[in-house]
Amino acid sequence: MVNYPNKKKQPVNQNWPVHEEKKLYTAYRGMNLEEDLNESNRAYLEQDIAVIYKKPTPIQIVKVDYPRRAAAKIVEAYYQKPSTTDYNGLYRGHYIDFEAKETKVDYFPFKNISEHQILHLERVLKHGGIAFLMLAFTSREEVYLIDASYVTASYRKDEKKITYVQAQTYGHLVRQGFAPRLHYLEILDEYYLKEGS
Amino acid sequence: MVNYPNKKKQPVNQNWPVHEEKKLYTAYRGMNLEEDLNESNRAYLEQDIAVIYKKPTPIQIVKVDYPRRAAAKIVEAYYQKPSTTDYNGLYRGHYIDFEAKETKVDYFPFKNISEHQILHLERVLKHGGIAFLMLAFTSREEVYLIDASYVTASYRKDEKKITYVQAQTYGHLVRQGFAPRLHYLEILDEYYLKEGS
Repeated sequence: MVNYPNKKKQPVNQNWPVHEEKKLYTAYRGMNLEEDLNESNRAYLEQDIAVIYKKPTPIQIVKVDYPRRAAAKIVEAYYQKPSTTDYNGLYRGHYIDFEAKETKVDYFPFKNISEHQILHLERVLKHGGIAFLMLAFTSREEVYLIDASYVTASYRKDEKKITYVQAQTYGHLVRQGFAPRLHYLEILDEYYLKEGS
Repeated sequence: MVNYPNKKKQPVNQNWPVHEEKKLYTAYRGMNLEEDLNESNRAYLEQDIAVIYKKPTPIQIVKVDYPRRAAAKIVEAYYQKPSTTDYNGLYRGHYIDFEAKETKVDYFPFKNISEHQILHLERVLKHGGIAFLMLAFTSREEVYLIDASYVTASYRKDEKKITYVQAQTYGHLVRQGFAPRLHYLEILDEYYLKEGS
């Protein structure tokens, strides 16, 4: 639509697309990155676009009861520290691997990622996979996809964090919508899998 | 080594390679496929050959206690049916995905694999990954790598099983050894990733 100079500016309208987008951002509030990613991956799967799953949390099982006529019941178990990342899968013939993190402040402190996970990201890069960090700045309601090469290099340089400005500069803002809520694969299309690359 | 017609046959010798191999087969007895695969994947990882992991078993957590000064303790949880396969990862730039199954008899009954897992293998093939079934005939102490295309086609044709003869005919016998115990990636080198393919 062309806006002619003399045309009155479009009045504010709750149904206007920009507001719909605003609404989506608002809807995002209070949700969590993991849920959004799981929903997005489900949508990608149903639309036959990609096969990406969250790995189950590793759990150390200590004691199991086997009641008669009922399912085995785990009665003592503990969460284990994951040695790899949260998500992996397959997109357009490529191995995809990423860790998802949230932060309420304007930086992501490296103390919230384990050395094991950094090492895993480095290995994925080395063996020809696509690896990245999905970083949600929850108070801004923005999610950035940041390539693992940047994340691991910063970590190895003994930097303490990734700032919001670094995420903006070296990462890609993930478009939000419905089904998938986080359109992160379009970033791979654009920056990783462009024809000829 | 060439055996001349008149040359005396090599006497049986405990150090002879064929016996070493025999010994390995014997060592394999009583072990399980999952342990062997985990050990093999650990070896591949340590030798910087591939990045392949078993996915943790999905567990539905119902109740967690948070004792003071101690780790969260899961006090009620149940095993969930996995909707994908046991193993996935990255090898030579390729997405690898497989299910591992054991059978004591001379066939693998399809009732021991879920429709969800078949569907997952089909999706992996469709999106350009390498997918297969790793099938151990425990009484024979042999493991076969069978491409998912064969497995899923048999399943969809409503066949009830994969027989030992079919595994021999359409699959590849996995060489056994030390670190990795199961040299399954060499089958990918030979049949999937041959130069020019």
